[in-house]
Amino acid sequence: MLWFIGLGITGPDSLSARAQKIVSESDVVYLEQFTSPITDAETQKIRELVRGEFKLGPRWLVEDGREILETAKEKNTVLLSYGDPYIATTHIELRVRAIQQGIKTDTIHASSALTSLIGECGLHYYKVGKTVTIMSTIPSTTAYYTIFENLKLGNHTVVLLEYNQNKSFFLEPVAAFESLLAAEKEQARKAISDSTYAIVASRIGFPNQSITAGNIGSMLNEDFGEAPHTIIIPGTMHFTESDALKAFARCVDAPEDNTSKIQKISAQMMKKYVPMVRRALEQIAPHYKDTKEFASVLENAELYIRDAERFFEQGKDELAILSIGYADGLVDALRIAKGIEPEM
Amino acid sequence: MLWFIGLGITGPDSLSARAQKIVSESDVVYLEQFTSPITDAETQKIRELVRGEFKLGPRWLVEDGREILETAKEKNTVLLSYGDPYIATTHIELRVRAIQQGIKTDTIHASSALTSLIGECGLHYYKVGKTVTIMSTIPSTTAYYTIFENLKLGNHTVVLLEYNQNKSFFLEPVAAFESLLAAEKEQARKAISDSTYAIVASRIGFPNQSITAGNIGSMLNEDFGEAPHTIIIPGTMHFTESDALKAFARCVDAPEDNTSKIQKISAQMMKKYVPMVRRALEQIAPHYKDTKEFASVLENAELYIRDAERFFEQGKDELAILSIGYADGLVDALRIAKGIEPEM
Repeated sequence: MLWFIGLGITGPDSLSARAQKIVSESDVVYLEQFTSPITDAETQKIRELVRGEFKLGPRWLVEDGREILETAKEKNTVLLSYGDPYIATTHIELRVRAIQQGIKTDTIHASSALTSLIGECGLHYYKVGKTVTIMSTIPSTTAYYTIFENLKLGNHTVVLLEYNQNKSFFLEPVAAFESLLAAEKEQARKAISDSTYAIVASRIGFPNQSITAGNIGSMLNEDFGEAPHTIIIPGTMHFTESDALKAFARCVDAPEDNTSKIQKISAQMMKKYVPMVRRALEQIAPHYKDTKEFASVLENAELYIRDAERFFEQGKDELAILSIGYADGLVDALRIAKGIEPEM
Repeated sequence: MLWFIGLGITGPDSLSARAQKIVSESDVVYLEQFTSPITDAETQKIRELVRGEFKLGPRWLVEDGREILETAKEKNTVLLSYGDPYIATTHIELRVRAIQQGIKTDTIHASSALTSLIGECGLHYYKVGKTVTIMSTIPSTTAYYTIFENLKLGNHTVVLLEYNQNKSFFLEPVAAFESLLAAEKEQARKAISDSTYAIVASRIGFPNQSITAGNIGSMLNEDFGEAPHTIIIPGTMHFTESDALKAFARCVDAPEDNTSKIQKISAQMMKKYVPMVRRALEQIAPHYKDTKEFASVLENAELYIRDAERFFEQGKDELAILSIGYADGLVDALRIAKGIEPEM
């Protein structure tokens, strides 16, 4: 038998009587420690609860899994972990292998920082998009694009920060902000800037929990205290969310809507191409005013510019881009044929 | 003092010793019942725990909030609710008002169905996109587009189903599937069909929990048993997710990747326009073979078709559409000028 038991966000004190009984009566209890830090005091509390064998479960042991599975074949075994057990994909994989090997499994779920911190920041859970992690060792390109995609849809992004148990290393929020600003420099989608509004949720569930919010630029010199920290980049904020954030957090700057600061690529294109094609059309028209067969090409170009604007207003971004591209092609064909250089 | 205490997904048995003590020693305990059903047996257990005054908290009482806030000004008050307290935005708003009125608040977080069910289905939490709810009373257009957006990004979608406490009404999974198929008929984005792979997670955390997965078409006559149910429309599935789903769920059909079934509008456009512009170019080229000034227009068109294909491969969808539109315009300008009808 293999139990997956979550310690929740406040550690062993949050175990229910039922969970305590299972832990206490099991033959072997592994305490997994690599997905989140567990203090010595908490470890000691768990140790005192266990009447069977108590073992620490470092990353290699849980990922390898063979010892735990062999033990669980013969004995009542518990894998205790911080938060809700299956947020860590390693635990899901271990459960799959247990089932495949005929070992009975069961689960006690617990509070997770991922749900808790949304509410603690006053945000609406159903508006949270895909979650990302920023690592110190790799550029945050993926995180950058995930935030951009979430913002385009108005969604909030939870940004998890690297934790390395072996090195007791936590990525600092400021390092994560710098990494995102570096990604902006490289990718240049205008998704992140000094004025991007961000929330840093520190030590959620701990007695010294604190939440700080403000523009990234204002927070680059902020000291957020001890880890763990999580960043949220909010999308559209309902007024009840802004009000809640103001009540729950220390706001260095007043809450601001990030989605009004970003522009979809399609919007950036329309802003550039609609006036550009209009100018090109005006420039080229006089050269063809006596050429009847080309006059209809120019009329078509004008119609397609208007179509592009209309489609864009209707939210049909792809059709808008296709139309402005087409109008540009019509005009440019005539320009190229006359050997006229485009005006800049 | 106002406590927000979560009952988790398994009800009062999952309360920690600390939470039990707070509930037991408080002057007034409200049991909120409208976000999720709580059985009579569970209500009775909570009633027995409470030594102060016990009150049921229907929707109007919690949304209005005045009675609870007035009570909390004078007495130690608890608002108990199913799952994790702040998943329900009503509870966040009540906490904001309490803080604004100078009432001290605190929280005990607990397991939430929203995190638990992802792991119970074997899916990776960080791949979950925005969550949606389907209601019986309104068309599921928003849910449909949220699923479509999530699928375009490869994300999983958690689809919550209407629960109305006053009427003891739960929307059935089959009714939700039918609502999504109706939205497909109307919106026609090819996001949902009979072959869309879906997971129905029933009674997560209850002793009779069950998970069923399969194509929507195969599940329209399925009996999923008692409520509550939640649907997940998975996005891209890592092989460890498919393996886990097979181990944890009853799979009516083998797990399938929904993202390969949907096509972004940009992909639909590229599929149509690239061959169309190529054909038009071939058709028009002979008419201009002796006209040097137009030859470079045709060369440009060929280059831009190739650019479109390359941009699309690189995931630069907007640039791909702009390029194919431009190539189309170049070719069409020459076609229109010659008065040639396009081949169909």
